[in-house]
Amino acid sequence: MSQQPTTTELVTRWRNSQSDSVNDQLVVEEPLEIRVANQSLIVVMRTPGHDFELGAGFLFTEGLIQSADDIGAMAYCEDVGATNLGNVINIHLVDGKVFDEEASWQRNFHANASCGLCGKMTIESVWQEIPPIKSSFQIERAVLYKLNEQLKSAQTVFAETGGLHAAGLFNSQGELQIAREDIGRHNAVDKVIGQALLSEHIPLDRHILMVSGRASFEIIQKALFARIPVITAVSAASSLAVDLARGSGMMLIGFMRDKNMTVYSCPERIG
Amino acid sequence: MSQQPTTTELVTRWRNSQSDSVNDQLVVEEPLEIRVANQSLIVVMRTPGHDFELGAGFLFTEGLIQSADDIGAMAYCEDVGATNLGNVINIHLVDGKVFDEEASWQRNFHANASCGLCGKMTIESVWQEIPPIKSSFQIERAVLYKLNEQLKSAQTVFAETGGLHAAGLFNSQGELQIAREDIGRHNAVDKVIGQALLSEHIPLDRHILMVSGRASFEIIQKALFARIPVITAVSAASSLAVDLARGSGMMLIGFMRDKNMTVYSCPERIG
Repeated sequence: MSQQPTTTELVTRWRNSQSDSVNDQLVVEEPLEIRVANQSLIVVMRTPGHDFELGAGFLFTEGLIQSADDIGAMAYCEDVGATNLGNVINIHLVDGKVFDEEASWQRNFHANASCGLCGKMTIESVWQEIPPIKSSFQIERAVLYKLNEQLKSAQTVFAETGGLHAAGLFNSQGELQIAREDIGRHNAVDKVIGQALLSEHIPLDRHILMVSGRASFEIIQKALFARIPVITAVSAASSLAVDLARGSGMMLIGFMRDKNMTVYSCPERIG
Repeated sequence: MSQQPTTTELVTRWRNSQSDSVNDQLVVEEPLEIRVANQSLIVVMRTPGHDFELGAGFLFTEGLIQSADDIGAMAYCEDVGATNLGNVINIHLVDGKVFDEEASWQRNFHANASCGLCGKMTIESVWQEIPPIKSSFQIERAVLYKLNEQLKSAQTVFAETGGLHAAGLFNSQGELQIAREDIGRHNAVDKVIGQALLSEHIPLDRHILMVSGRASFEIIQKALFARIPVITAVSAASSLAVDLARGSGMMLIGFMRDKNMTVYSCPERIG
């Protein structure tokens, strides 16, 4: 177990026909078990750090809690053996919420847990009923074009390891508010939204979410729970991500590089 | 619903200060519900195509079946409504295997289902007991250096959309045997291994698996179920991927580009 985001390993590096033994920085991947009221809910593979943000963000972006007020206390579990220490968190909800109705929670969870939607058992459970974003938020192109460099500058672990996804939350002036890196792209988003949740900044209806890779359906759905009207991605968007963004009043932008971009939905949000 | 791997959408493309409405090729993302003996097991977000390979590969690389002989018949479900048609498959196992013991199957599944391990509820269930690979398989560097270009040439959908992960299976001469693309990195691996399973080529103990992105723990675990001794990735490997590869006798290689590579484990497999 390591609770650092990177670790050093001796590896063999080949350059053409020459090999060297060198110390290489690797991104740390460890399981995090999220328990709610002492019941195991899910395990996600994550890069250690900001685990409570991840737990809170996960519950929120899966529709299992509605606000930070639903959370009572969060702590690492100590009854898990030395190997798992630091890799299991427990989240207590206020007022015994949800676990008054344990059966319904379990059903809801298995209908909602996801990393790329895995954990969901039926196809109906994929589609969540989330109202579209009505805000008239607009943003200038000049602001959008500044985001990429800022997120890159914040990717300190990626710079060392080449092994991480990043997500960044920007305000309406295009200033970076929160950036998180993780081996799992959904985790990076959950950590960002979790931090916003815990610091009482939800809804994020005048903010922009940027992700370092591709925009999939689930990234959009998570952002929709947080009411984020503009999502930008460095790479491509999927068909279903575009469908959801269009149906939800979100501007989805892909291939955001230098002063180039592809606007998939709601281009009227460029003002 | 679309059952093609790509779809065309009208988007707004900005190049500096000029915008154009253009038709863009997007990668299709659709849910696939996998049922076993008519019971919903899991939903994965995938790119349509090779769905039976994905289903069979998923069951195999999660340790839920041991060979193609365990599979009786696979078919798309027709009782799912027009929207979901083509997105739900049912896999019948021979001899009522597993579902004789429904409770144990369910428990096993929730302990094993995963995309990045999501669906797993407890941290103990992350670690599967899979014996290490004992084969003395070795491969020359010259062969390894040829893999990248071959996989790239097979990435036809990526070339169109920029939106896909790829996995390729090579024989000991470095010849590409199976290549699959998918929006989900695990799906691409499951499709490749599923195809090998269905065509009775398991175990793959003289083969090489290459993935277009990063090497995570779960990619290595899936390859280990198929007994693949050499895994190469275009990008970085995680700490846990390296740990598992080292403990399992697998050579794990990252940053495989041109004639450069980083060998994380079992460098003695280079012969």
